[in-house]
Amino acid sequence: MRIEKLKEFITEKELDGVLITGRENLFYFTGSSPVLGGYLVVTPDDAIFIVPELEYEEARESSKVPVEKFKTGKELYERLSSFKLRRLGIEGRTSFSTVQTLREKAGTEDFVSIDDVIRDLRIVKTREEIEVIEAACRIADQAMMAALEEISEGRREREIAAKMEYVMKMNGAEKPAFDTIIASGWRSALPHGIASDKRIEKGDLVVIDEGALYRHYHSDTTRTIVVGTPNEKQRDIYYAVLEAQRKGVEAARPGMTAKELDTIVRDVIKEYGYGDNFIHSTGHGVGLEIHEWPRVSQFDETVLKPGMVITIEPGIYLPKFGGVRIEDTVVITENGARRLTRTERELI
Amino acid sequence: MRIEKLKEFITEKELDGVLITGRENLFYFTGSSPVLGGYLVVTPDDAIFIVPELEYEEARESSKVPVEKFKTGKELYERLSSFKLRRLGIEGRTSFSTVQTLREKAGTEDFVSIDDVIRDLRIVKTREEIEVIEAACRIADQAMMAALEEISEGRREREIAAKMEYVMKMNGAEKPAFDTIIASGWRSALPHGIASDKRIEKGDLVVIDEGALYRHYHSDTTRTIVVGTPNEKQRDIYYAVLEAQRKGVEAARPGMTAKELDTIVRDVIKEYGYGDNFIHSTGHGVGLEIHEWPRVSQFDETVLKPGMVITIEPGIYLPKFGGVRIEDTVVITENGARRLTRTERELI
Repeated sequence: MRIEKLKEFITEKELDGVLITGRENLFYFTGSSPVLGGYLVVTPDDAIFIVPELEYEEARESSKVPVEKFKTGKELYERLSSFKLRRLGIEGRTSFSTVQTLREKAGTEDFVSIDDVIRDLRIVKTREEIEVIEAACRIADQAMMAALEEISEGRREREIAAKMEYVMKMNGAEKPAFDTIIASGWRSALPHGIASDKRIEKGDLVVIDEGALYRHYHSDTTRTIVVGTPNEKQRDIYYAVLEAQRKGVEAARPGMTAKELDTIVRDVIKEYGYGDNFIHSTGHGVGLEIHEWPRVSQFDETVLKPGMVITIEPGIYLPKFGGVRIEDTVVITENGARRLTRTERELI
Repeated sequence: MRIEKLKEFITEKELDGVLITGRENLFYFTGSSPVLGGYLVVTPDDAIFIVPELEYEEARESSKVPVEKFKTGKELYERLSSFKLRRLGIEGRTSFSTVQTLREKAGTEDFVSIDDVIRDLRIVKTREEIEVIEAACRIADQAMMAALEEISEGRREREIAAKMEYVMKMNGAEKPAFDTIIASGWRSALPHGIASDKRIEKGDLVVIDEGALYRHYHSDTTRTIVVGTPNEKQRDIYYAVLEAQRKGVEAARPGMTAKELDTIVRDVIKEYGYGDNFIHSTGHGVGLEIHEWPRVSQFDETVLKPGMVITIEPGIYLPKFGGVRIEDTVVITENGARRLTRTERELI
């Protein structure tokens, strides 16, 4: 079915074939993910997965597509050349050097991006994919619980992240979905405050943004707390963000656009007078990549559909003072949206 | 000095400029590494680092090159267009979609790979770089110590990796240099046996291959142990690999080629009758990337020079039985080589 869509694209665009080399897409189309990479060739009639010799046995066990092996680059390009891929569909991320080598050694003349067809497939998740993402979200919730237990005055941000990542791995994660963010005090005003050696101080806002990679799928969640008693301004921005996030989760449903959802969330922050301090988009798709489609922003008019998985993560950032962000990964359902990350949101 | 080399290349190849977008190279040339990426433009007279608005403040603090910001893709490509980069040097890894966008929106017509000039710069490390790599190697040694303490009958491979990665992070690492390999029993015959849920059993060979990423630089080391008393065949292959690895470290010196070093190591394994079971190259360069130049293989005739950092990592893999690999990161010195990872090698 997935491969069939590529074949339809080949016919429609009058291509000789498609070549896929990106790790996530190889997994998506073959079910296999060799450490050393591989080359999936799809032609109008055929699909073949060509992998380095060292990966052959493992790929044969996991791949849904017939597997071949190569020893040297020369052997690989001779085989690719045999498909006569003069007009070839490739991923936008394919490297300049691969394109050059295909031109020189496989006789390819024209290259066409296949990103749109891959996007249209991957943007709606199957039930099986949602189950795996939900499992990744369970692990993120466990890591968040660990963070809430560990954070206290005097601890270093990095120690908290180390413990969270340990909990993720012990619960089955391959690794963190991205560099764990623990941003305390003035650092909480940085949207990308990767855990540093800064010590957490009394009165600090602490933004905890984390996720797990589990069976190739990602999760993404953020909570913010205050160490000790929050002051009035901290409470103000916290409850503005919380209301915006809740309203986003309640409003999200099929048929609306990603832009409309961004507007609903953004308007709450604006009403509280912090519109200029919400300096990023409301969210992004999550799946085989941590940031994928749609973008929940003013620039994406994608119509939401059941099976899409997105984040809803408004934030307010006040330079030098600190920031608040609250984020869940949610799945669009038949008539609304369901939170996949579920840690309590009312934390101050 | 680094930027000067790019300018010389621009003159030599009659380019209008060079565009760098790869994360490691951005750090190498600017000293800055924005999470959201950036665009370093070098022209015959100038160098400018263009970053997303969200990254502007941080980039200005860390970059050795003047920084500009952009809000939208449109703004970015208008600025790039202003440099009139008709003939442009780019990294081989630059994506097909970036190349297409430069063609359409910045008027670039010819693209030339700058990989060789970057390789020639990065392949020899400065004293400062070697100090950071050595610190990354200290952390890898600490993680290895944790593995040796933790491994015992009944533990899952993944638990051991979780503990090691925790130790790395607590000792200052950003993250593991690559997915930690804990390959026990039959899995030790897989050169890339990333830690799984398999339980470690009595009598298992266990290959532990790990490294830390510290201040943008990598380390890489492998040890192999047996849980309990090794049998004769396990001892045989262990001591063959140990002799090959020691001989490699002793032989490595400036003036020889990477291929010659590979031959010296490979010949020891061959003498013991396991030539066909040493199914990968002897090693690889280590630096801002975990696998860089030179390749210590039959296909790389690079002459070793003081300041190059490489791994020496022979292995023997007997399908279904198990495998042994012993690896250190070493730096080529004025008259030999010095081990940067230093965990005891005689472990069975």
